[in-house]
Amino acid sequence: MSFLYKSDPERGAVWARLFAERAPAVDFRIWPDVGDPAAVRYLAAWEPPENLTEAFPNLELVFSVGAGVDQFDFSRIPPGVPVVRMIESGLVAGMVEYATLAVLAAHRDWLTYAAQQREAVWNPIRVRTAGSRRVGVLGMGVLGQAVLTTLQGFGFPCAGWSRTARQLPGIDSYAGEEGLDAFLARTDILVCLLPLTEATRGILSRRLFERLPPGAVLVNVGRGGHLVEPDLLDALDGGRLSAAFLDVFDTEPLPAGHPFWRHPRILVTPHIASMTQAETSAEVVLDNLRRHREGLPLIGLVDRRRGY
Amino acid sequence: MSFLYKSDPERGAVWARLFAERAPAVDFRIWPDVGDPAAVRYLAAWEPPENLTEAFPNLELVFSVGAGVDQFDFSRIPPGVPVVRMIESGLVAGMVEYATLAVLAAHRDWLTYAAQQREAVWNPIRVRTAGSRRVGVLGMGVLGQAVLTTLQGFGFPCAGWSRTARQLPGIDSYAGEEGLDAFLARTDILVCLLPLTEATRGILSRRLFERLPPGAVLVNVGRGGHLVEPDLLDALDGGRLSAAFLDVFDTEPLPAGHPFWRHPRILVTPHIASMTQAETSAEVVLDNLRRHREGLPLIGLVDRRRGY
Repeated sequence: MSFLYKSDPERGAVWARLFAERAPAVDFRIWPDVGDPAAVRYLAAWEPPENLTEAFPNLELVFSVGAGVDQFDFSRIPPGVPVVRMIESGLVAGMVEYATLAVLAAHRDWLTYAAQQREAVWNPIRVRTAGSRRVGVLGMGVLGQAVLTTLQGFGFPCAGWSRTARQLPGIDSYAGEEGLDAFLARTDILVCLLPLTEATRGILSRRLFERLPPGAVLVNVGRGGHLVEPDLLDALDGGRLSAAFLDVFDTEPLPAGHPFWRHPRILVTPHIASMTQAETSAEVVLDNLRRHREGLPLIGLVDRRRGY
Repeated sequence: MSFLYKSDPERGAVWARLFAERAPAVDFRIWPDVGDPAAVRYLAAWEPPENLTEAFPNLELVFSVGAGVDQFDFSRIPPGVPVVRMIESGLVAGMVEYATLAVLAAHRDWLTYAAQQREAVWNPIRVRTAGSRRVGVLGMGVLGQAVLTTLQGFGFPCAGWSRTARQLPGIDSYAGEEGLDAFLARTDILVCLLPLTEATRGILSRRLFERLPPGAVLVNVGRGGHLVEPDLLDALDGGRLSAAFLDVFDTEPLPAGHPFWRHPRILVTPHIASMTQAETSAEVVLDNLRRHREGLPLIGLVDRRRGY
């Protein structure tokens, strides 16, 4: 019985050590050292190998090493094999850090000060209170909820939007297409933490930007596919949006000639908002193996129809 | 009986309104509309007028409109007149925001990504956990304590240093000259929130930087006088420090030709880390007037010998 890992080798080495300590009966293997394909019961990958069904006939469980599963082609994963995405404390903590950083940077005018620094211009802007800056998070899963809870602690009036209604103490909740207008109309800083599905692809578009208050700020830490890139440039250049903090892009790495790199109102980071942390993710995977063995619900089990 | 206000007129207008509502017996006046100088019992100012003793013979109380009183010349304020500095929730909140922003930006390599963006370079850096990044705050007054409590919430191992020992739950406390070495040796990101006094002037010097771990980061939100500016440039260029986030400077506005503006490892903001907020500061001043009338201890009373 083996567990095949196909992702970042540095993290793989930590998993190997923790598996050896905590699940010695499992033969932990790092791709491409597959061993006997028929022995592979578990697979953890960012992008699974081709021909999964034929290559590993006894596969029981597939883990994504990231929070999303939009990189998976579900048609190539046997229907009876559960797919689990990564919900682990290290990944959540990193996302809370990045979203807080981006929202505070938007709130405290850091793109303006960066531009002023380039020109050696000293021009203080009056500090507005957090209470006057409304933050809205698209997506109220584990990541969205953690981000909302932290930002609320700074005094930002916070709201969340999700496909189906969610309750979170102190957070205004909006749901579904019918709740989106009201959610956007009250949102000065919009954080996208949605899963990428056919329903959310291209959601960050001109049509959405026009429903935000003028001068709103976009933080995209979801997926590049959420954003219609030309619409963002139009919205920034027309003043509808005042800034964008982008960590994900349609094409990654972002091509050298892409206009986002040089735009003074866009901050680009290279898909680093959060990363699956070796120790804490191994704990969750080991826990899920135990749950699978004992027939308990898996943490992060994906509903293939919803796509997350 | 009048209250003379000599500072930002926009905030003064808010104070005037709140005084009219809450303390109608006090004649609230905005400089230079002094009225009868003999009627002035209370003065709130960033920089008090000259010849205070002669000009306002019946002065009972002087308020600084900022958190610090280093801009005051105590020799020109009658010895019997208490001096009160500003401790108000709006000012605390702004400082917590800025310090969190700077510490998270240091932790998440934002100066490196800014440099990469200028060159259109996509080069992700592995995300380190907050638990591996030790934050230390110089100064454990109201501001330092609030900053420490918030940063602790992100999982940073946090320590504070103060002149005399302070206890704060979950925070490692160091005190006095004898505690400084150990505090610095365990600090990867150093935040200066000290008052500026003769004892702290020039404390951010080569001698201090050499006691930090190599590659440490400086966040100065105290006063420009805390920092020996040439020593910072040497420490950055020699690799002893890896970055600095500076909001305060020896000379403000920072002169256009100053090397800080153009240094790729220095982020400059124009003394905006926090500002006294009109409503919340008026509340505190009104509360202190009541306390003064009733003989209760004043919030923010300055010990002239300590200088804060």
